[in-house]
Amino acid sequence: MFRTHTCGELRIADLKRTVTLAGWVQRIRRMGGMTFIDLRDRYGLTQLVFNQEIDAVLCEEANHLGREYVIRTIGTVAERSNKNPHLPTGDIEIIVSELTVLNVSATPPFTIEDDTDGGDDIRMQYRYIDLRRNAVRANLELRHKMTIEVRRYLDGQGFLEVETPVLIKSTPEGARDFVVPSRMNPGQFYALPQSPQTFKQLLMVAGFDRYFQIVKCFRDEDLRADRQPEFTQIDCEMSFVEQEDVLQLFEGMSKHLFRTLKGIDMQEPFVRMTWHDAMKRYGSDKPDIRFDMQLVELMDVLKGHGFSLFDEAAYIGGICVKGAAAFTRKQLDELTDFVKRPQIGAKGLVYARIDDDGVKSSVDKFYTQETLGLLKAAFRAQTGDLILILCGDNVNRTRKQLGELRLELANRLRLRDKEHFACLWVVDFPLFEWDSDTQRFYAIHHPFTSPKPEDIALLDTDPAQVRANAYDMVINGVEVGGGSIRIHDSALQRRIFQFLGFSEEKAEEQFGFLINAFRFGAPPHGGLAYGLDRLVSLFAGVDSIRDCIAFPKNNMGRDVMIDAPSRIDDVQLDELSLTISE
Amino acid sequence: MFRTHTCGELRIADLKRTVTLAGWVQRIRRMGGMTFIDLRDRYGLTQLVFNQEIDAVLCEEANHLGREYVIRTIGTVAERSNKNPHLPTGDIEIIVSELTVLNVSATPPFTIEDDTDGGDDIRMQYRYIDLRRNAVRANLELRHKMTIEVRRYLDGQGFLEVETPVLIKSTPEGARDFVVPSRMNPGQFYALPQSPQTFKQLLMVAGFDRYFQIVKCFRDEDLRADRQPEFTQIDCEMSFVEQEDVLQLFEGMSKHLFRTLKGIDMQEPFVRMTWHDAMKRYGSDKPDIRFDMQLVELMDVLKGHGFSLFDEAAYIGGICVKGAAAFTRKQLDELTDFVKRPQIGAKGLVYARIDDDGVKSSVDKFYTQETLGLLKAAFRAQTGDLILILCGDNVNRTRKQLGELRLELANRLRLRDKEHFACLWVVDFPLFEWDSDTQRFYAIHHPFTSPKPEDIALLDTDPAQVRANAYDMVINGVEVGGGSIRIHDSALQRRIFQFLGFSEEKAEEQFGFLINAFRFGAPPHGGLAYGLDRLVSLFAGVDSIRDCIAFPKNNMGRDVMIDAPSRIDDVQLDELSLTISE
Repeated sequence: MFRTHTCGELRIADLKRTVTLAGWVQRIRRMGGMTFIDLRDRYGLTQLVFNQEIDAVLCEEANHLGREYVIRTIGTVAERSNKNPHLPTGDIEIIVSELTVLNVSATPPFTIEDDTDGGDDIRMQYRYIDLRRNAVRANLELRHKMTIEVRRYLDGQGFLEVETPVLIKSTPEGARDFVVPSRMNPGQFYALPQSPQTFKQLLMVAGFDRYFQIVKCFRDEDLRADRQPEFTQIDCEMSFVEQEDVLQLFEGMSKHLFRTLKGIDMQEPFVRMTWHDAMKRYGSDKPDIRFDMQLVELMDVLKGHGFSLFDEAAYIGGICVKGAAAFTRKQLDELTDFVKRPQIGAKGLVYARIDDDGVKSSVDKFYTQETLGLLKAAFRAQTGDLILILCGDNVNRTRKQLGELRLELANRLRLRDKEHFACLWVVDFPLFEWDSDTQRFYAIHHPFTSPKPEDIALLDTDPAQVRANAYDMVINGVEVGGGSIRIHDSALQRRIFQFLGFSEEKAEEQFGFLINAFRFGAPPHGGLAYGLDRLVSLFAGVDSIRDCIAFPKNNMGRDVMIDAPSRIDDVQLDELSLTISE
Repeated sequence: MFRTHTCGELRIADLKRTVTLAGWVQRIRRMGGMTFIDLRDRYGLTQLVFNQEIDAVLCEEANHLGREYVIRTIGTVAERSNKNPHLPTGDIEIIVSELTVLNVSATPPFTIEDDTDGGDDIRMQYRYIDLRRNAVRANLELRHKMTIEVRRYLDGQGFLEVETPVLIKSTPEGARDFVVPSRMNPGQFYALPQSPQTFKQLLMVAGFDRYFQIVKCFRDEDLRADRQPEFTQIDCEMSFVEQEDVLQLFEGMSKHLFRTLKGIDMQEPFVRMTWHDAMKRYGSDKPDIRFDMQLVELMDVLKGHGFSLFDEAAYIGGICVKGAAAFTRKQLDELTDFVKRPQIGAKGLVYARIDDDGVKSSVDKFYTQETLGLLKAAFRAQTGDLILILCGDNVNRTRKQLGELRLELANRLRLRDKEHFACLWVVDFPLFEWDSDTQRFYAIHHPFTSPKPEDIALLDTDPAQVRANAYDMVINGVEVGGGSIRIHDSALQRRIFQFLGFSEEKAEEQFGFLINAFRFGAPPHGGLAYGLDRLVSLFAGVDSIRDCIAFPKNNMGRDVMIDAPSRIDDVQLDELSLTISE
């Protein structure tokens, strides 16, 4: 037997017991004739003691151990003279009588501490060592607990977990698919699913009523920060429901997770906000409402005073930053640089300081103190506040820039406490989005999203105004989940496909099986999907989803630990009837 | 609201309640002035009643519904005059006052009954309709429950579920990988995992101690009957364990599943049988021990009597079939044909009937009644029994043929009751298997399997005799799971690689990251993996794993419902730097 106990469980009640422990050597300290070893496993640390005077040979063996050696040790539990209140096992230590080295270890390339000296790259290359660190392991333990609780909740609500296939069919709409050449069908390819969307709808047609799946999905995108080519969704779908049913049930799930994983009991219903309101008030479809600093439109106040930038703008708006009037020139320049970054794309930043003498703005020469007084009033600003203003020729684009500025300021002012969670539903998304490049409308969610019944008439007259029965769950400015009520009526589905420019052949080719399935009694249905990686990161209070994935890939989609992707044998290529065109 | 209740929950206690139900029209019957509809959902059937005399218009609407129409109905719960004791809702019916058609349905291509009139192909093409059948849905409900219980058990035992990557690195050893071209790394490929083997071992190196995952795996094989290119494993690994620890823990899991899913309380420990014994007594490394009919070696009895086929054989053995002496000539010919099929490969079948007059065999002229008496005694055969004998020049190959014959007879004699479960562990597998084609040894499990410490010395002298710390769980003749204690010692691992003919470069190229990881303190570890699809089939009492998979593929690896795999756009190929060589 390798152990009788783990390194995390012995307490003062175990005094005098003979125990066998196994684990890794975290630390060795020699003091006088004593050697102390912190033995580590997943469950904790236990101190081992070797006494030169009692057993010189054994003590000498202990002195020759190295960091991360794997050992097995037999000894007696004793009370520590020098207790460690920070450690659950801190009241006891093991007087060792027997020591076996199970495996040696080379010196690890970085320290296995919460604050490690290893950089990102080396930690990824030696991920199996990085995973020994408490911080990383705790995230993955949280991930495990979250999936257990998600399943507990959904199982309790009558959901069935059904596995949908991974080798499916490529659909060029949407993001790019990863494809898998079929050896048995030369020249043909499977695709890896971007989501089980069509399959979960088929399961509704099949009468499964309530489906969920915690499932890997794949997207071959140029990886932006914090995207992974493979990611995990909590994918759900329900039949015979309206939007309200879905929101209630999944708000319940989120509350269940907060209660069981964070000990937070959320009594209040989640805030509901229309997409239009979110854009107008926060410049974002995923507003962070942990702090206020709402956008205020200033067209009435600032337009028509001879400042041509504003006079020509389609939108002027600002935010009021409490107590930030004291920002230095340098800080304001930094903010100007921030909004001018290509990712944000604003042309410049106008500011106005509220101080005892009035309002001092960077565009003073165009505005009277009276107008600036109206500006102050528009924000109900007070002495010591700073007003920041952007303008632009595209309303929502400018609102988004202002929304980004709002988040940047909240970061700088530390208004985004990671242990405070502000949840809301964003509802009433537009069904379509106009793309000026291709001069056509696209489905914002996907082509199966149901329009609001009262908006269907607008399809012919003003499609941009058609609202969808779609909803996102947003927590702390992160879209953790989203979904919609689906179209279950074949005629309406055909109309939407037509509107989106799918020819009948193309719709048939890509979604024929779904369209066909809908002919055989499709029930009303809807659902949503959570991004598990993001949800775990949020609960763990970490910024990157990578910290919550056991073996993540880097920004080039590469696993640097196993060195994948890689070249394959020519034999393999031949079998697949493929050649590489360089 | 679409419904207040499901179609499975109303009882006599609900009498007079006004309820709203929604579901599919299973059946319409008109009797006199009444119309009866069986309304179906996942949860059951409820009878709806329409009365011509009370509401002629509504009744007429009901008469116009078709099979599989989706409807919503409001009505009052009433007691049935003609109760149906086979239905949980059979005591009540709904007197309908309001009816809404939510969706129409074309006539389904086959009936939605337990005994459907649809053939395999059409049911696969319309799988979403096939899934409406109770029998198929019940299998998937069982699958859901099984994964819930597996997670409950393993979570309770301190296991963490960790997701390992799906886009990994190709390793040409073992079965063929599915590969995924990388657009961002032209000419390079990911592979889909055949199992998370190396990752779970890395998690042990990472100190995760107890890992599991219910995970899709992939194998690009020429599909034999009942194989799927994607399949699901319950994959598990533990640190600081010996074989006995693994067997105990997973025997516990299987018992937990039998108790919670089948109501079977297995008190006795599972039978343990060495691989050698299993081959000798059952001609199989996955013996079905629900029935006896063990193999008996007959070299001593039948060799050297002038029957050249036997005299030249390396193995002669037989089985005794109780009460089968009355088998007709035709039945015996069928059995002879059976063993001569290329899949079995025997040259012929010798039989001996035990009747009141003695033993009558097909090779009477070579053997005296005295010898035949010894034959009878070898089986402790009785009047009315039938002895079937095979011989061959390869001991284990002949045993396997006899094992197949044994199963065939058990099938014919209905000795394989699907509701009776006989579980065992097969242990002490050989570590290597000699391949006469390539004239080399292969690892039977995989190259990370630990030899038994006491057999390591045989590596140099008699490798075929080296036993592995490997084990399979077998239920009713099906290998439901298997695994091994792994090698955690780098030197031993190098030696095994060398023995298997991996050059240092090749081992480094393919498993470098694992070999490297083992340098940093790998703990002793071992584990196993269950085939979920097969385990569910076994519990469901169905023969094919396809019946327990929501959307299976056919024998050509094709999903006939969505028509995958398929051609992809040339643009996609270009992006992947690939051309198809026809």
